[in-house]
Amino acid sequence: MLKKLFPGLEWMLTYQKHDLRGDLSAGLIVAIMLIPQGMAYAMLAGLPPVIGLYASTIPLLIYALFGSSRQLAVGPVAMVSLLVLTGVQGLAEPGSSEYISLVLLLALMVGVIQLSLGLLRLGFITDFISHAVISGFTSAAAIVIGFSQLKHLLGISLPSTENVFELLLEASRQIGSINLYSFFIGITSIAILVLLKKFAPKIPAPLVVVVYSTALVYLFNLHEKGVNIIGEVPDGLPSLSFPVWSTEAISALMPVAITIAIIGFVESFAMAKVIATKEKYKVDANRELVGLGLANVSASTFSGYPVTGGFSRSAVNYGAGAKTGLAAIITAILIVLTLLFFTSWFYYMPNAVLAAIIMVAVYGLIDVKEAKHLFKIKKIDGFTLLVTFIATLTLGIEMGIFIGVIFSLVIFLWRSANPHMAELGYVGKLDAYRNTKRFNDAETFEHLSILRIDSPLYFANIQRVEARIQQAFLKSDKVDTLVIDFSGVNDVDAVAVDHLEELMNTYRDLDKRIYLCDVKGPVRDTLREAGWYETFKGQIEYQDLEHVLDHLKR
Amino acid sequence: MLKKLFPGLEWMLTYQKHDLRGDLSAGLIVAIMLIPQGMAYAMLAGLPPVIGLYASTIPLLIYALFGSSRQLAVGPVAMVSLLVLTGVQGLAEPGSSEYISLVLLLALMVGVIQLSLGLLRLGFITDFISHAVISGFTSAAAIVIGFSQLKHLLGISLPSTENVFELLLEASRQIGSINLYSFFIGITSIAILVLLKKFAPKIPAPLVVVVYSTALVYLFNLHEKGVNIIGEVPDGLPSLSFPVWSTEAISALMPVAITIAIIGFVESFAMAKVIATKEKYKVDANRELVGLGLANVSASTFSGYPVTGGFSRSAVNYGAGAKTGLAAIITAILIVLTLLFFTSWFYYMPNAVLAAIIMVAVYGLIDVKEAKHLFKIKKIDGFTLLVTFIATLTLGIEMGIFIGVIFSLVIFLWRSANPHMAELGYVGKLDAYRNTKRFNDAETFEHLSILRIDSPLYFANIQRVEARIQQAFLKSDKVDTLVIDFSGVNDVDAVAVDHLEELMNTYRDLDKRIYLCDVKGPVRDTLREAGWYETFKGQIEYQDLEHVLDHLKR
Repeated sequence: MLKKLFPGLEWMLTYQKHDLRGDLSAGLIVAIMLIPQGMAYAMLAGLPPVIGLYASTIPLLIYALFGSSRQLAVGPVAMVSLLVLTGVQGLAEPGSSEYISLVLLLALMVGVIQLSLGLLRLGFITDFISHAVISGFTSAAAIVIGFSQLKHLLGISLPSTENVFELLLEASRQIGSINLYSFFIGITSIAILVLLKKFAPKIPAPLVVVVYSTALVYLFNLHEKGVNIIGEVPDGLPSLSFPVWSTEAISALMPVAITIAIIGFVESFAMAKVIATKEKYKVDANRELVGLGLANVSASTFSGYPVTGGFSRSAVNYGAGAKTGLAAIITAILIVLTLLFFTSWFYYMPNAVLAAIIMVAVYGLIDVKEAKHLFKIKKIDGFTLLVTFIATLTLGIEMGIFIGVIFSLVIFLWRSANPHMAELGYVGKLDAYRNTKRFNDAETFEHLSILRIDSPLYFANIQRVEARIQQAFLKSDKVDTLVIDFSGVNDVDAVAVDHLEELMNTYRDLDKRIYLCDVKGPVRDTLREAGWYETFKGQIEYQDLEHVLDHLKR
Repeated sequence: MLKKLFPGLEWMLTYQKHDLRGDLSAGLIVAIMLIPQGMAYAMLAGLPPVIGLYASTIPLLIYALFGSSRQLAVGPVAMVSLLVLTGVQGLAEPGSSEYISLVLLLALMVGVIQLSLGLLRLGFITDFISHAVISGFTSAAAIVIGFSQLKHLLGISLPSTENVFELLLEASRQIGSINLYSFFIGITSIAILVLLKKFAPKIPAPLVVVVYSTALVYLFNLHEKGVNIIGEVPDGLPSLSFPVWSTEAISALMPVAITIAIIGFVESFAMAKVIATKEKYKVDANRELVGLGLANVSASTFSGYPVTGGFSRSAVNYGAGAKTGLAAIITAILIVLTLLFFTSWFYYMPNAVLAAIIMVAVYGLIDVKEAKHLFKIKKIDGFTLLVTFIATLTLGIEMGIFIGVIFSLVIFLWRSANPHMAELGYVGKLDAYRNTKRFNDAETFEHLSILRIDSPLYFANIQRVEARIQQAFLKSDKVDTLVIDFSGVNDVDAVAVDHLEELMNTYRDLDKRIYLCDVKGPVRDTLREAGWYETFKGQIEYQDLEHVLDHLKR
């Protein structure tokens, strides 16, 4: 009972001493990664960097207690940070106290939405977001995020717009006013990050570039030469915060809150599942929603901003040997220590290095391989990815995912409204009945036609099925019997039953017969309710094709 | 070629003399029915009654030439008339010249929409409107229409609202000012219509009540005692009319134009199909759209209003022996003669009799039996009907059908996201493998589990399928082999293939094996693209359960 409420208790009560080493080192490595990332992502979200650190304290502890994944590294992530920026910048000036207060409200809303979905066991609705949609959306968002950092990298000021082309145009206009010091720091940081990742993946590259660039600024007084630096970072723990709310603010933030709640969860849960399968334990969508929801509520009450499970940090956490939620607790403790004692060290850290960290991190999210892979297996799924990608780039983040989800569902509906149907013939070498279009040597009959329907029957496809049945009889005057193989009919609705019943009656009046065989249990139940086992006695009870053909031979 | 353009040519060129008698008598009977109905429905639409007659001339001829049904009786119908009223009354005062001009524009828009859908071969999109939605919507609209006539029946003035309860409340307030003469005419007309329909269905009841009530008004001078009468009806043919248009008017009318175009077509096409199946000819959705579209365009250029194929008039037409479109042409000629010579006869016709005709006509559209039937066969389809019914009554006509369509599609998606899966066991008496939940005597195996999936696999259900597969292995430690019967898997998308592939690899690493059997052609194609026939060679090629079990025994 208690364990159901606090999934974290499970690993706490059964903690094994030999897990401690892995948890300790993973906690440390993630903290080293999270400090610069947290500040960078907060900057991306239009917030003071310290808020990224605040969001990396209490929410991690809360998730460790209420979440069901033991390796998920919760905290600020790039995608959610971008969503925060795009959702709130229209309502207040990024960085202003009004902006911060709206972001706190947003975190609360995200938390309440996730918590409600989890408690109402509605986690399944996220199943309707196809991986193709997620992939297209993520790639596009990564590009938007990358370009949003251009201003920090170049040391110029650019309009905050999601439109990549507008950004590039404006940047080219300001090419003369680029701050070459910022640009140098940014470019060299990117180079170091990329090279270390490739040749020395064990070295914590973000830490290296942060130290390198901070030292550069400090040693050469670059902040006096136009290089933007983080400056004063308040020390001490986050104070309690209570978001002020108004109905207008809530309704203005609602679309972005829903988007963050769902996208944040989907990305996080996907990672949690991958690790859980490898470690042979189960994660549950609804419990994850509760865990993330409470983490976000705590983010809003401790001066943070929306958090979720991060892809790359979780991978690092798992790879570094994290066995339980203790790793996350250690990370949180290290961040708290940093906030208490080391914030002054960040004074000379240039914005350009944070931009470099973000750019390298999101570059890995652009997944061209997945697009090619989907196109190869099934073109239409590749198209779904492409449509989502283009819509996200051109129409914006929220619209992009909305269009992708609708597109993928319409495709599914359209496919199921155009069911696959096959005329069957006897294939001697297999001793079986197969699609005559695939097996040219399949024998057909003079008076008899066999049709297999590979689809549930429902209102949107029954008209096509009707037309196909009529066609089977129209093919030749000699055909007076149609056997329909129902093995692929997984479900029927009442509208389809009515249509079929009328058709079967019409043909009965014309002295032609329709037989069904291999009708599945759920379909049998519906036909029984419709009284078919009396109306069409002798026509629909056959367990397979052989039985009905045996019966017809007699 | 010409016949494709003018489907009507087919019956014209092959006209048989012996069809003439049926066409003549059907044409006459429909004309007698259509004259009062046309005027009544025009009144319902907020138009002068003569416009109902205009709409019963040229559009009938156009449909006879371009439509593909030979018995469909095109003209004003109750449902479309109500939609016209609800769609236009917000923009202009019903009956005003501005109102009439907007209605002409609406007819043109409906015609162009139907024509475009037909020419672009998009008729299939109407397949997505479930019969359950149509039925619920029609019943609710019938109630709204019936109550909208209360003011004419009682001889009082009521607000034009779709809200039935508001109407009843207001009517009860005005109970003192009811015109008893109108009320008497209305009630007796209803009684006559109902009784004649029941006991003497051959007698044209509308004609009888029209003559009866007109005589009453004329003989007793009831029009001087507050009974509203039709009054002057202009004689002569409809003049050419060119709808004036503005972009605001078009965008304001667009929702209702789309609704009329689709609902009008769906109702009409359903009737056309019923008759065509009985008469063994084919009607085509796209040609029907072209025929109705051109009829509506002609309605807008000859002072008419939107028309479609009427349910009851088509049934009467067919029942009276109509064999070809000649019947409709005869109807149109008779209406033209009426317009030329007999309009003065309508002067004393009371509004109350038209209200009575409408009320009796729409009462037949309230279909409680269908609701019960759907609830019996499949509860959720009954619910779809009910939801549409309630939404139409409470939220209005257009919203009602919109909610119904969305609801029915969401239900379908929801069902397909929760696929039926069954564990199979060997049933000796059938010599077959069946669902262990339905066949208690089915034998299962110690090391082997057999799972049948009855659903296409796609992004929205693959997570549940994954969970079910994991469960099959978790059931007992001894289970090391899972056979999945794919005979019910009609389709897979790329996302589902990726998920399954990962799962199969994971279990392979754990030294457990998953086998597929009876994989259908379209699914085989996708798996081949994904390289499964190399990756999982020996695991997925079996044509049925027996073959894979034979292989495993060896």
